[in-house]
Amino acid sequence: MKIKVGIIGATGYAGVELVRLLISHPSVQLQALSSVSYEGKKISDIYPNLKDICDMSLQNEEIIDKCDVVFTSLPHGLSEKFAKKCIEKGVKMIDLGADFRLDSAEEYTKWYNKVYEERELHKESLYCIPELHREQYCGQRIIGNPGCYPTSIALGLAPSVKNGLVADNTLVIDSKSGVTGAGRGLADNTHYPNCNEAFSPYKVASHRHTPEIEQTLSKLAGKKVNVTFVPHLLPVNRGIVSTMYFTATRKTSAEELYEIYKQFYKNEKFVRVLGLGEVANLRNVKYSNYCDISLHYDEHTNRVIVVSTIDNMVKGAAGQAIQNMNIIFGIGEDCGLDFVPPAF
Amino acid sequence: MKIKVGIIGATGYAGVELVRLLISHPSVQLQALSSVSYEGKKISDIYPNLKDICDMSLQNEEIIDKCDVVFTSLPHGLSEKFAKKCIEKGVKMIDLGADFRLDSAEEYTKWYNKVYEERELHKESLYCIPELHREQYCGQRIIGNPGCYPTSIALGLAPSVKNGLVADNTLVIDSKSGVTGAGRGLADNTHYPNCNEAFSPYKVASHRHTPEIEQTLSKLAGKKVNVTFVPHLLPVNRGIVSTMYFTATRKTSAEELYEIYKQFYKNEKFVRVLGLGEVANLRNVKYSNYCDISLHYDEHTNRVIVVSTIDNMVKGAAGQAIQNMNIIFGIGEDCGLDFVPPAF
Amino acid sequence: MKIKVGIIGATGYAGVELVRLLISHPSVQLQALSSVSYEGKKISDIYPNLKDICDMSLQNEEIIDKCDVVFTSLPHGLSEKFAKKCIEKGVKMIDLGADFRLDSAEEYTKWYNKVYEERELHKESLYCIPELHREQYCGQRIIGNPGCYPTSIALGLAPSVKNGLVADNTLVIDSKSGVTGAGRGLADNTHYPNCNEAFSPYKVASHRHTPEIEQTLSKLAGKKVNVTFVPHLLPVNRGIVSTMYFTATRKTSAEELYEIYKQFYKNEKFVRVLGLGEVANLRNVKYSNYCDISLHYDEHTNRVIVVSTIDNMVKGAAGQAIQNMNIIFGIGEDCGLDFVPPAF
Amino acid sequence: MKIKVGIIGATGYAGVELVRLLISHPSVQLQALSSVSYEGKKISDIYPNLKDICDMSLQNEEIIDKCDVVFTSLPHGLSEKFAKKCIEKGVKMIDLGADFRLDSAEEYTKWYNKVYEERELHKESLYCIPELHREQYCGQRIIGNPGCYPTSIALGLAPSVKNGLVADNTLVIDSKSGVTGAGRGLADNTHYPNCNEAFSPYKVASHRHTPEIEQTLSKLAGKKVNVTFVPHLLPVNRGIVSTMYFTATRKTSAEELYEIYKQFYKNEKFVRVLGLGEVANLRNVKYSNYCDISLHYDEHTNRVIVVSTIDNMVKGAAGQAIQNMNIIFGIGEDCGLDFVPPAF
Repeated sequence: MKIKVGIIGATGYAGVELVRLLISHPSVQLQALSSVSYEGKKISDIYPNLKDICDMSLQNEEIIDKCDVVFTSLPHGLSEKFAKKCIEKGVKMIDLGADFRLDSAEEYTKWYNKVYEERELHKESLYCIPELHREQYCGQRIIGNPGCYPTSIALGLAPSVKNGLVADNTLVIDSKSGVTGAGRGLADNTHYPNCNEAFSPYKVASHRHTPEIEQTLSKLAGKKVNVTFVPHLLPVNRGIVSTMYFTATRKTSAEELYEIYKQFYKNEKFVRVLGLGEVANLRNVKYSNYCDISLHYDEHTNRVIVVSTIDNMVKGAAGQAIQNMNIIFGIGEDCGLDFVPPAF
Repeated sequence: MKIKVGIIGATGYAGVELVRLLISHPSVQLQALSSVSYEGKKISDIYPNLKDICDMSLQNEEIIDKCDVVFTSLPHGLSEKFAKKCIEKGVKMIDLGADFRLDSAEEYTKWYNKVYEERELHKESLYCIPELHREQYCGQRIIGNPGCYPTSIALGLAPSVKNGLVADNTLVIDSKSGVTGAGRGLADNTHYPNCNEAFSPYKVASHRHTPEIEQTLSKLAGKKVNVTFVPHLLPVNRGIVSTMYFTATRKTSAEELYEIYKQFYKNEKFVRVLGLGEVANLRNVKYSNYCDISLHYDEHTNRVIVVSTIDNMVKGAAGQAIQNMNIIFGIGEDCGLDFVPPAF
Repeated sequence: MKIKVGIIGATGYAGVELVRLLISHPSVQLQALSSVSYEGKKISDIYPNLKDICDMSLQNEEIIDKCDVVFTSLPHGLSEKFAKKCIEKGVKMIDLGADFRLDSAEEYTKWYNKVYEERELHKESLYCIPELHREQYCGQRIIGNPGCYPTSIALGLAPSVKNGLVADNTLVIDSKSGVTGAGRGLADNTHYPNCNEAFSPYKVASHRHTPEIEQTLSKLAGKKVNVTFVPHLLPVNRGIVSTMYFTATRKTSAEELYEIYKQFYKNEKFVRVLGLGEVANLRNVKYSNYCDISLHYDEHTNRVIVVSTIDNMVKGAAGQAIQNMNIIFGIGEDCGLDFVPPAF
Repeated sequence: MKIKVGIIGATGYAGVELVRLLISHPSVQLQALSSVSYEGKKISDIYPNLKDICDMSLQNEEIIDKCDVVFTSLPHGLSEKFAKKCIEKGVKMIDLGADFRLDSAEEYTKWYNKVYEERELHKESLYCIPELHREQYCGQRIIGNPGCYPTSIALGLAPSVKNGLVADNTLVIDSKSGVTGAGRGLADNTHYPNCNEAFSPYKVASHRHTPEIEQTLSKLAGKKVNVTFVPHLLPVNRGIVSTMYFTATRKTSAEELYEIYKQFYKNEKFVRVLGLGEVANLRNVKYSNYCDISLHYDEHTNRVIVVSTIDNMVKGAAGQAIQNMNIIFGIGEDCGLDFVPPAF
């Protein structure tokens, strides 16, 4: 019996990446796709890469009934109503948007300018980066799928934070994301001549992923962790590189860091801790669910540098959402996700 | 029983793409990789994208014994000796180089400045674009895997040539290839600052794929076909677009062309004939084995324009080689090749 | 006394390129900039590259009075009314749009779906690629500045056409343009993830520059010349490469072609005829007013291949417009245009 | 009387950029170019962008006699011998390499693995970012032209350091450089398919520009300043963006920072302090001598973020070297350097 899957918001970038990955998932039957903007059209009319492979028609949003699980990939503020319906119908929901990521309703309102209308729903939900949170899964019906930046950052910092290596108030996170991270909507800053042969930060120290990052790190640390987070727009299609800096609480070394990380991720297929002297490069993870992490130590300042890279659309969105689906349905966590990253 | 596969020349671009695709082929066991340059190293030392996925050691070239089939991906002039050994050992060989593509020893010498040392071997070999030549397969032990440009061009022109639509001496082929087509070797014209924000043709009307193109088209036409072929270096990693022009032998229309092509490719999974008004774009085939073809008619000059696009490393090299392997071993031709092209 | 210059439509891509080039023109005083969309803003608010260099305010369109010459850079159908005003006020006008390029009102209506309201104006105007048409200048008050594709093509073909080398009905023109050619307006096909790592033709054999190309070539030939013209969108910011194919009316050679072209352009600073064996590359002309031309001969098909490359925003738009201004005002034709193309 | 200028190492990337800029410098006569690798060839044979514009022959290194000033652009360890000759001949020298940047012979040996053979020469030399050090110019015969990263960093941090805003041991510098920064030599990491659609840091906390950065900041601070410096390779041709983080010594604000920087750079043409809410983007400075700086404050961590961007080949190399030449010869500091950065 295959898992019947629906996607609400199938024509956004995360939505169509879900379609691509789910088509070849051996335990999934892609049941229904919905799109407000393109109802009645075929998904392959919008994305001709799918021609003859997936020509499903886009429906309105009433597709929940037909599914065992629904992925929602929507602008923030729209997911609660689907979550409510899913729970009523006994359908699982995995939300790729921002509505089930923050525990604190106040933080949500502060950063997203919306309110949690249905606070009970949020108690039903689990924020889940599988490598860090899968043990907290106990049947929650809603999964808050993490953001792309927070995934790259939490995986890169978790072993250091857990091991008490991070000195208070010293975390600086400099992230760079490919342009698909900005989504499918047209905008001046994603117009080709504006971002080709260009580079700059954006939303400096004010990006909405900041509270999500701090929430995850604070839980790992068992105390409030503050970060300065600055994202940059990188002229590539896919991928995130997060370069992370902190002062160590004691003298350490690249060798020790390597041992700590190797131990921490020893059972994780999708996290690759690179050897000493190697440097993480988004080239090596693109089109895959891997997260590569390299570890560096600046002895003269006693500062640790961690470089973490993922494909923002796979491990940072659709791939991780499927990893979460696999957890919920008790199948192999890597099922349908073992894409080999290409060399170029 | 899985097919035991070896790759000779595994660290070139076509070689490592074979590795990537064969890792996830359900009927294949990757048995041995050889590389003259990197003997003793792990393939993942050279290509860190493969870390923890394929860490096989690179051997010298004596890997034939262990295999049912060997892919050779070598500079021209080096494949005959491996072909001879393969035949002696009863091992099939699929050659991704240029040594088993041309029927005429004279043409080979003219364009490649080498000679066929072992002419008998060439009688044992089949040049095979599966969609055009698979019916000629009758147990040949050596497959000459077609070049990337010739594949895009032959698939794009075959229905027109077969249907007598191409007026003599009118074929102009303007092709554009991503930089991986130039291979892994360092060269001035593939140094990043030289090919980024740059564009130009190269080997104008003198590229070695010209006789291969003319050979295939001539056989389809049943008479000598001449072409002017001009390749260009395109600042993208992957993909070929061939824009092909010929004067029609009679008045025709885009509609008629569409019907002819749809009919010709009606049973072909990997060739997608685009609808009227659509235009083939390499974006829609990259990282896949598909060939997209769009058809256009310039009424005021009675000229047909065919646009054909493939991923040069998949349908143009490693993917098509695997398609040929599937034919040889009598398994589904698309086995291990059903990669969905990503939207971005 | 400096020439007082105004720009109508200063915030489009051709407009802002005019601003950039005119700022450093030694004989020009930039007098006024107009923009319907951004009236009241500073040009450097829209284009921060100009900050502290040119912070002029954008005005409405009533700037003609203050100027000796006005450049108009507007969507087609809007230039006639400004032309009329200019003539009334005794102000010269150089139109970078399409409204003063075609002699035939019927062709204009066919391709642009507008009518020439003021036919008299068109008799006052001169279509001028300086290298080909400057001798026709005799005080016309309106200059139709040529399109980007037609400039690259006419310069590349003129010597062949003039010398009777081009066999009838054999001209095929395959052009590739950087993304700035599509202008500043947001569109799906210029959204970064859609055109990065992508390539395709567009408006196949139906681009509006076709009648302009045929008009220029027909005049040079003294008879009707038909072409098949297919433009492609190239993932670079700037530059056009036109690869042009025709059957020669007689046996020729690259050497002969070179002599013909060298002779034809012997007094032209901005046209560089490359030596035998060299190939034109847009890399060598970007950010400059040069046109590089390379000549190739395919003996086995008796076909000539000419490769012509320009910067679409300079020689293909703003630079050529300034060259035309220099002609009108009788100053050195290269004045303010001697930018050295960078190596990278 | 024009200044007679020679370039030693004219075929490297900085060398050819000097050629490009000096060609249009109104007070310069380009006298001689030397290149060990290409002696006897024309510079335009190596760089065809210069065809018909500068076809000077490349000579051996004995060009000093003919010049008033010589630019040396050489691998480290080779400049001292030329410096010695220049001083003997009374010729000024501006060194774009690393040999006259570090005061400390020990640091030089530690980072570059060479020794200062002629210590006296270094006392004759001035390390000069004009905006910060021009007042120290008092006839020194050798100028150590600063490195590209250090220029972007020192300009971005000088006002903060001078004003005592930078808390000890908190400086983190995350820089990103276009690929021309790696020079003309072929290397795996600058092979197009390896750096296109790729991104990663390199020489993490071990780049040779680190001591130069610390030297400049320490002098400004009047005490030892340590930094963690991590450069990244950015898939663009040109430009550096440095994102710099430090904890403020007291509460501050973006507004206050803006006032401090505006005041500090109030007389500087080539440093543009961006308004509040604006973010520096390399797009706005490329092909120009400008440095754009934007200022940001993360209140919740009391951390200041400064973003500084330059064109690595102009303000980061050839442009700044010419600015230094202008200082030496007492002509306007911006002479020949007022290139307007293009919008695209």
